Formats: sequence, C-alpha cells, structure tokens
Amino acid sequence: MPDHSGQDVAVAIEAGRLAANCARMMEKAGMPETGARITADSLVDADLRGTHSHGVIQLPGYLDRLMAGGINPRPTLRAVADTPSLAILDGDGGMGQVVSHQAMTLAISKGKQTGAGFVGVRNSEHFGACSYWSAMAVAADMIGICSTNGVSCMPPFGGITGTIGNNPIAIAAPAGREYPVIIDIATSVVAQGKMRVAAARGEKIPRDWAITLDGEPTDDPLEGLKGLVLPVAGYKGFGLAVAFEVLTAVLTGAPFAKQVPLDPGPAEPLRIGHFFQAIDIAPLIPVPEFKSRMDELVRQIKESKLAKGVRRIYAPGEIEEETKAIRLRSGIPLAHPVIYDLKSVASRLGVTWQ
Amino acid sequence: MPDHSGQDVAVAIEAGRLAANCARMMEKAGMPETGARITADSLVDADLRGTHSHGVIQLPGYLDRLMAGGINPRPTLRAVADTPSLAILDGDGGMGQVVSHQAMTLAISKGKQTGAGFVGVRNSEHFGACSYWSAMAVAADMIGICSTNGVSCMPPFGGITGTIGNNPIAIAAPAGREYPVIIDIATSVVAQGKMRVAAARGEKIPRDWAITLDGEPTDDPLEGLKGLVLPVAGYKGFGLAVAFEVLTAVLTGAPFAKQVPLDPGPAEPLRIGHFFQAIDIAPLIPVPEFKSRMDELVRQIKESKLAKGVRRIYAPGEIEEETKAIRLRSGIPLAHPVIYDLKSVASRLGVTWQ
Repeated sequence: MPDHSGQDVAVAIEAGRLAANCARMMEKAGMPETGARITADSLVDADLRGTHSHGVIQLPGYLDRLMAGGINPRPTLRAVADTPSLAILDGDGGMGQVVSHQAMTLAISKGKQTGAGFVGVRNSEHFGACSYWSAMAVAADMIGICSTNGVSCMPPFGGITGTIGNNPIAIAAPAGREYPVIIDIATSVVAQGKMRVAAARGEKIPRDWAITLDGEPTDDPLEGLKGLVLPVAGYKGFGLAVAFEVLTAVLTGAPFAKQVPLDPGPAEPLRIGHFFQAIDIAPLIPVPEFKSRMDELVRQIKESKLAKGVRRIYAPGEIEEETKAIRLRSGIPLAHPVIYDLKSVASRLGVTWQ
Repeated sequence: MPDHSGQDVAVAIEAGRLAANCARMMEKAGMPETGARITADSLVDADLRGTHSHGVIQLPGYLDRLMAGGINPRPTLRAVADTPSLAILDGDGGMGQVVSHQAMTLAISKGKQTGAGFVGVRNSEHFGACSYWSAMAVAADMIGICSTNGVSCMPPFGGITGTIGNNPIAIAAPAGREYPVIIDIATSVVAQGKMRVAAARGEKIPRDWAITLDGEPTDDPLEGLKGLVLPVAGYKGFGLAVAFEVLTAVLTGAPFAKQVPLDPGPAEPLRIGHFFQAIDIAPLIPVPEFKSRMDELVRQIKESKLAKGVRRIYAPGEIEEETKAIRLRSGIPLAHPVIYDLKSVASRLGVTWQ
C-alpha cells in the first residue's frame, strides 16, 4: 500500500518537469548529468506511484549529504567479484540510485546470459523505493527481486536494542493485460514516515508500531521516532530482516547490523549493501504464456468475494500502478511544504526552478 | 518458532530407528529404497527440530495418497527447461520430498558452476518442511532459498474466497561457531496445525487467525479448520504469498491459485510447484570470513537488551537447531497418538515395527 505523506495537497506538477528540476539540483551539487537524471527519475516515479515517503521529499536530505561529503557525487563503480551469474559491485560511496541502476542492469545482463543474475552491492547509500529496481527486470520480461540493509532501527524479536534495519523486499513480475504484480514491503510494522505523519497531525499511534529509547511501548509518535520501529508479525518480520541482512551485507562485505549507525550525520557515509536479482522467463516458459497466466492469477485475486466493509480487492502493486497512470496524465499532487522545501534548496544552490 | 504438536508426550524414540521404520513403510507402499529413505530422513528431521506439524505425523496421509494413486511412488523426473543457471523439473507426480531432493541437488550443482542456481519444479506434491531443502545448501557452503505453492487455503487481503496457498519461504545460511541461520515462515498468521491443537485442547483461537466458510471471523478452531486461514500482517503476508505463487507455479507451469484444490482426495494428484535457489558464497567472499561475519551477526542479535518478560533472544533457527542437538542425543519425544497411528498403519501394511 502507498505510504501517503498525509500532508495537505494543492500543487499538481508534471512528472517530467519535476524530474528535470530535481536533476539540475543534483548536477549543481556535483553529480554528472546521467546520474542526476537516473536518481531524479526514480524519486519522481515513487511520487507518481503515491509512495511519497520515498519520493522527492528525500531530495533535500540527499543534497545535504552530497554537499557535506556523506555521498560521493562522482563514484567509480567496480566489480570486486564476478562469475557468470554473480557479481559484487563496490559503489564507491555513490548515490544509491546510481549504484542500484548499474547493479540491476548488470543482474539483467547476467540473467539474459545464464538464466539468472544475482548482483550484490557494498559501499552504497539509500536507494529510494525498492520496487523501482525490481521493476527494471519487468521491462526486460524478467522477474526482479531486490533488498537493501539500512540503519539499525529495529530490535530483534523479544529485544529492545536497535540491531538491524527494517530491510525491505521487492519482487516484481510482468503481466499481459493486467498491471505487473509488484510487492514492496518493509519488515517493520510501519515505516518511520507514518510516525512523522501522525506527529504532524497530533495523532497517537498504535502501541505495536514502535518502542521508546528506553524500550517501552509507546503511543506517542515523537517518542517512537526517537526510539525503534518494531518488526512486523513478530519473529516472522524479524526473521526476514535477518535473512535480507545476510544477502545484502554479510555476503557483500557491507557493514551489517549495529555496524550501520542508527542516525548518521550528513558527512558520514552509510556504506550499506543491496542485492538485485533477475530471473529470465523465456528459457522456462514462453513469455506470452507466462503473461497470460499472470493475468489469470490477478483476475482470480480480484474476483474474490469481499470481506465486510471492503469495496474492492487489489492485486499487489495495482493501486500504485493505477495511481501512476492517472498522475502521468494529470500531474503529481505534491504537498505545499514539499514543493516549498525543494524551491528553497534550489534557490540556495542557485538553481532556477522551471 | 517450532509448531509443537501440543499433544501429550511420553515416548522418546531414537531418530535413526524412527526413520528406518518410516522408510520401510514407504517401500512397502511401492517406493524405491532411496526415495523412501530421503522422505523418511526429512520427516524425522522436522521432528528433531521440534516442528512436529511437518514430521512423521504426515506419513499416514502420504501412505494413503501413495496407495490411492494421488502420489506416484516411482516417478521419472525430467528437466523440461535447462540453462546454465536455471532449470524446470517435472516431478511426474512423485513424492514432494524425492522431487525436492533432486531439485535442490541440481540447484546446488548449477550454483557451484555459475555462482547461482535456480530450479523450479512442477507436477510435485507436499514437500514437508521448507527449511529442510534450504538447509541442503548450507551443507555445501551456500545460501539456500526455497518456497512452494499449495492448496488454496487463504483469501486475498480484503477478500473471503480461498484463492492462494499460505506459501512459505525458507532462507538458510551457514555460520561458523554459531548455528546456521534458518528462517522458515508461512505467509498465514498460523498454520492449520495450530488450529488442530487448539481444537484438541478445546481452546478458542484469536479472531485474526481464520475465517469460516461464510467469510466470518471466528474464535472456534473447528470452524476455522473448515474455513480459510488469513494472511499474516494483512497485505504484506498476502503480497509475499502472491510473489511465491508466481515463482513456484506461474513460472514453472504448475497449477496456481484456485487451480489447486482446497481439499484434494487421496487419489487426486496435487501437481503443485516449488522453487529452489542456491547462491555460492566462495566466489563473493572467502567462506571463513563469511562465517565469522555470520557469527558476529548472531552475537549482535543475542546481545540485545531484553524486552520485559523475555528471558532470552534467539537468532532465527536457533531454537530448532538446539532442539535437534538435544534430540539427536536423547531421542525424539513423540506424542502417544502419533506413535499409535504409525504402528497401526505399519501393521495394516504388514510391516513389522522395529
């Protein structure tokens, strides 16, 4: 489900124009044109899909890190391991989106050669919405899978010490007439963005979302934001977070668990890890047959009888794709404070907002 | 966490003896010696690990299906697709454990050749505990991942029609001094076995576990058993179940979603699908370094401060591995009714229980 910003919305902006403005700000902060465009496109895609928490709202923070030295604007990526189906890329502390674009491109290329490509990444940064990278495989008629580790914002099941990221997983597969099926879920009950929304609205939060710095359950979003988020579904969400920490960091040589700071300063590189996987469909089943089977799966899901109070069943990713289709036509409704922040940063950088 | 049978326990039986008795029963039902032994070993391993719901309690049902024609005792497995990193095996309706053993062996072999092996399966049966197959990769110093689809026992998020399996995922990775990290989780809140335990004890169940045949929430385990289990963590568990249905069935050519019956008779083949993946560690990072990093991850998890009322933090899979180590020494405590059932079936088959 989209993580809407929940803030007052009044400005609709055309996606291409928003991306161009964002890209020019990153170029001004030292990034080459291609990297700036890749990053801007992926941020704007999140806003198009309604997942504003991973959209352009992130850009001011990225720019702070670019200018303070936390992110390397001109990284030299290199493969530190390479087999027909596997590779590890060192991201040289570059923007996570630039590193991820290259890593998923490599996973797709390896997958087209051998059937399945798996690329781990180390020495990278926040990569935005997980779903964006898995969806790159869909465009190549492949199944895409990816994850990342991150700041140690979650305790183990039964614990109260920040030990592991709320590491997300995204899996994407193409369909025919239906939208592609795309899941993108964090392993915490909610992302911290939802607590920020509750705090902004002066609302309390459910007591299973977060604990305070002292390890106490809380219904106060401000205390929760200072503390830790809790794993979704108890040991199940925690177990998945651990498994993704193994694939993204223990295996890739990235810092893992408490080695990743909980609250890094803008000059402090995160050096986190990701993994990207692309499985080719054509060697296993004719692509049109696969897509028609996907359509049938989606139809069966949507044809379910409805539970009380439910008006419609959505296939995974359908809400986001539908939102994107509408917003590509009518623009992205962005909250006033988000646009205001972007324009202020642009002005400080000496970039004219167009 | 183990899914304990919850039944009165009084008989401790040595693992090797239990497996030998189970294997001889399957041989009598027409399976060759090797397949019977593979299946028996995997069932007994589940009992060793304390996950009795996937242990020898399943054998009488398997034998019914073997003798009624639902399971093919002597399948001829063949690869219907094959690339350096990918394959699809047709299981010829054989015992899921026999098919899975061959499929994971092939995934490991492909992974040793190219770095990553991915083997999909169709035309198979229930394969027991998911973790067993992922752990085969651990023994080869690889990371193992697997899943399966199954009977359509779960509605979509927001729906009340049985549409999809509560498809599990298992991920396993080797450690050094610590136990391997192994997760194995179903995408429903609980497995149906937990409702059987509640029913046997005359206890009510939480209202988020299951719905009745009419789609109503229920606290009656018997009504829940006749109805559907609910996805864990709402749209998150449902999304994962859909993604695993894509990998195990849409991609492999197996029946998917409502094409798999909810309650198949013993003569009715399930024809379900699985997937198995093995990622080699050595090409990416020296194996001793990986294992020492895994040990550090496990230690960080276990060193967390404890939440109120918690006595110890466990790493994923630790309880099961610890239980197995104890039971390999002192035997498997099996519930009286389970042993009684096995001996009755042995007697009907003309097999002497030894």
